[in-house]
Amino acid sequence: MTTIVLHNGPIYILDPAQPVAQALAIRGERILAVGDEATVRAAAGNRIEVIDLRGRAVIPGLTDAHVHIVLHGLARQQVRLTGCADFMAALDQIAAAAQRLPPGAWLRGNGWDHTLWGGRWPSRADLDRVCPDRPAMLSRKDGHSLWVNSRALELAGITAATPDPDGGQIQRDEHGEPTGILFETAMELVRAIVPPPTRAERLAALRLAINEALSYGLTSLHVPPATNPADGPDTLIDLQALRADGDLTIRVLAHIAGAHLDHAIGLGLRSGLGDDWLRIGGLKLFADGSLGSESAHMLAPYEGRDHTGIAVIPPAEMKEIVTRANAHGISVVVHAIGDAANRSVLDAIAAARPTAIHLALPNRIEHAQILDPHDIPRFAELGVIASMQPIHCTADMAVADRLWGKRCATSYAWRSLLDAGATLAFGSDAPVETLDPWAGIHAAVTRQTTDGAPAGGWYPEQRLALSEALAAYCTGPAAAEAATDRKGRLSPGMLADLAVLNGDPFQIPAERLHTLRAELTMVGGKIMFERR
Amino acid sequence: MTTIVLHNGPIYILDPAQPVAQALAIRGERILAVGDEATVRAAAGNRIEVIDLRGRAVIPGLTDAHVHIVLHGLARQQVRLTGCADFMAALDQIAAAAQRLPPGAWLRGNGWDHTLWGGRWPSRADLDRVCPDRPAMLSRKDGHSLWVNSRALELAGITAATPDPDGGQIQRDEHGEPTGILFETAMELVRAIVPPPTRAERLAALRLAINEALSYGLTSLHVPPATNPADGPDTLIDLQALRADGDLTIRVLAHIAGAHLDHAIGLGLRSGLGDDWLRIGGLKLFADGSLGSESAHMLAPYEGRDHTGIAVIPPAEMKEIVTRANAHGISVVVHAIGDAANRSVLDAIAAARPTAIHLALPNRIEHAQILDPHDIPRFAELGVIASMQPIHCTADMAVADRLWGKRCATSYAWRSLLDAGATLAFGSDAPVETLDPWAGIHAAVTRQTTDGAPAGGWYPEQRLALSEALAAYCTGPAAAEAATDRKGRLSPGMLADLAVLNGDPFQIPAERLHTLRAELTMVGGKIMFERR
Repeated sequence: MTTIVLHNGPIYILDPAQPVAQALAIRGERILAVGDEATVRAAAGNRIEVIDLRGRAVIPGLTDAHVHIVLHGLARQQVRLTGCADFMAALDQIAAAAQRLPPGAWLRGNGWDHTLWGGRWPSRADLDRVCPDRPAMLSRKDGHSLWVNSRALELAGITAATPDPDGGQIQRDEHGEPTGILFETAMELVRAIVPPPTRAERLAALRLAINEALSYGLTSLHVPPATNPADGPDTLIDLQALRADGDLTIRVLAHIAGAHLDHAIGLGLRSGLGDDWLRIGGLKLFADGSLGSESAHMLAPYEGRDHTGIAVIPPAEMKEIVTRANAHGISVVVHAIGDAANRSVLDAIAAARPTAIHLALPNRIEHAQILDPHDIPRFAELGVIASMQPIHCTADMAVADRLWGKRCATSYAWRSLLDAGATLAFGSDAPVETLDPWAGIHAAVTRQTTDGAPAGGWYPEQRLALSEALAAYCTGPAAAEAATDRKGRLSPGMLADLAVLNGDPFQIPAERLHTLRAELTMVGGKIMFERR
Repeated sequence: MTTIVLHNGPIYILDPAQPVAQALAIRGERILAVGDEATVRAAAGNRIEVIDLRGRAVIPGLTDAHVHIVLHGLARQQVRLTGCADFMAALDQIAAAAQRLPPGAWLRGNGWDHTLWGGRWPSRADLDRVCPDRPAMLSRKDGHSLWVNSRALELAGITAATPDPDGGQIQRDEHGEPTGILFETAMELVRAIVPPPTRAERLAALRLAINEALSYGLTSLHVPPATNPADGPDTLIDLQALRADGDLTIRVLAHIAGAHLDHAIGLGLRSGLGDDWLRIGGLKLFADGSLGSESAHMLAPYEGRDHTGIAVIPPAEMKEIVTRANAHGISVVVHAIGDAANRSVLDAIAAARPTAIHLALPNRIEHAQILDPHDIPRFAELGVIASMQPIHCTADMAVADRLWGKRCATSYAWRSLLDAGATLAFGSDAPVETLDPWAGIHAAVTRQTTDGAPAGGWYPEQRLALSEALAAYCTGPAAAEAATDRKGRLSPGMLADLAVLNGDPFQIPAERLHTLRAELTMVGGKIMFERR
């Protein structure tokens, strides 16, 4: 068996005992040796294939611990108008996409922002000009309005006579005719009739998204289940299909939908079943809503409001569900944004402890965006993984300041959690935010947007050192998978999951961390991505 | 990493290109090299640990492709009176077991045969003398009658006034009082009140059974799900619990209960998920009953009878279920004994083909005891694994002769199936028959009981060569797991699953094959059993 030797560049193995190595040898799917050139050469033997790093840095493969990977791929296949400031260019892009689609297929898009187009709302007439025959539907960047063409309105049966639904509005012209812009719940009138993506479309989307992930140096993904039946069957099915085709080129931990607890218990399925390519994770639950929609569940009212958000699963029910899951060897993976939601989940996990049995994977909280200071040490005490997405911090900090005020001192509180002994597992939440983990690492280290705002960083005392941020993308997610014996570091015997970067993260200024990319990504000793 | 070298004995690698090797090297969980001493030593390097075979033979680890492993362990924990011809010795054995049990626990036993005790049925009074305080229940060897004590009758509320249930009989004395023997459905009156085994009892039973399996040289098991809720939760749960404790020392393919198809579809679970230690198999279904109970479903009436047995799942429904399972990536594992049952399953698998998707594992028929000659080539044509238990042939041949007559020419038709290109996967059906695979290999090669009856073998044209029988315990089951790239042979790169035997199967006479045992069994390069 040929041994692959990487040398001639810094190899960051994320092992505190020996942070940088000169060379690394891989045999089969695992790392054979790491260290100085002579030691590695001696271990590698004679049948070697050498990869000359030419000074490029190597890091352990990154894990995105929270990514809706099929949805991200589907969003990528849509017309993407994010940041597009030229309305005519936007229409050209739509026209080109409309021509590529098969007859009858819906044109879908997202990311447009009419404030970049002079503030005039686009209309169905604009869309009809470039997409007359097929229905078209494009979400605004915030997801709160939808731009549709005449064919879509016709298929949805929306006319001047259609009343506005509760909680929504059909934008109308001076004659009362729908203009093609639908707000809030009125969007559902169209969305409800869009056929779900076909199997082939979903698999193509998945391949696209995985290739994008590999291009950043990601080698593992933790994937929530599909929650909307309109998005098609569960992601787990698509992953198994891709694997059956021999095309699963990234490792995946796939969580189970909360609604499927009875199925899992009925089958006797426990968290952790699977192998290093595809493994069953925990039961995905929702404790509350989101910051932007003011539905994150808070202990005290939102600033300037008289409400505290929504407990999607109330605390008593949360205890019941978590106890039932943990008593059947199924760990939980709970969406909790607000401080009350986080407390509810921590309380539920504490209550579940006496009857929890053989949990192969730790329980975890997803997002954990704002925490009461008393709850911060409880993550470590209860062994709960803090699965957080640093990019949410810099994307939402203005909204957070407005709605949470000075409580923000313990929001996105990576430093406090780490200092209290918690394990951090970082991710993207793509397609809600970019899939790019370097954007996340940049946010974790600077707590600034890529424009450098605010100066000095937002609540900079919560910043992480680069090595800590990298660990939250490597060893932290490995701990969440109970896989620290084989993932997260580049030590002998570990799986050969690594990335060769286009720059050295420990040498470039922090404000440029988000520009890093993989030039080569290896999973299990195989090159799964190489930049040409 | 130290390399283990085995040498100084014949190593049967089951690779037709190189049937016997002199030495074999193992590194980690896999085979590094196999061949002549010099080649293997050169590949092994300097850090080696040598196992001197001292002439003992090595074979690939065997797979039992059909074993109720928890039930087998539970049966092993009971008082076993199989072959016990001394009634007083039987009572002594029961008395000793009764004293070992915790207060209140049921004494359970099996295997007694009153024809060995002079023909007198044992009574509750006999049992009360050695087991007065706790309830006791012992199944006759054929499972059609139950011997219970007074405490068991009392707990079940069986008195002189209790009527015989439909299809059963309470044996009574001259005063109408129950004697302690219950026939057929009357056994359920007691069985229904026996508490299921506790979790600790099940896990202890599983450990015991796995150790027994390893002692024969078995390294993989294919396990049907628990079908009787009284036996406790599904075996899959116990296997995951054992694994969580780090005690899963044998590889397992675990099938799903037919009743759980909706759970599997709901979760999006497909056959093949798992790793080389624990993997999800197919959906276990029952097409018919059994030969002895005349419920195996036959194309023509049983000899001297006017009935054809029972289609437990009728053909139309079988097509529906198999089509639905296969269309969701779930293969089927169908119990079919009679020729009509086998045809029904083959028809169903053929009907399911157009919509079957991404079946990671092949469909299979369990038992396939008697086949219409027209159906024999269909196993290969449809890619259906013939999962058979050779010991059933020699245990049941007298009954088969009586009930199936000359149709027996294509019963237990290993040779015909193999010649028609089918893949055979052999197993034990323990605890119905012995777990010992060497008893099965003996039966497959001789078609005789271990007493040598009948002379020349029963339908000897269906005998297998030893190498073919071994393949049906090695490469055949590996094909049923879609694992021929890493299991079933001792070739470089394959998993180091092997057994060192106490004799050479290719040198000893066929009539002594059933005396072989493992002296050392290795799974994934680790010694999991060693005879002291």
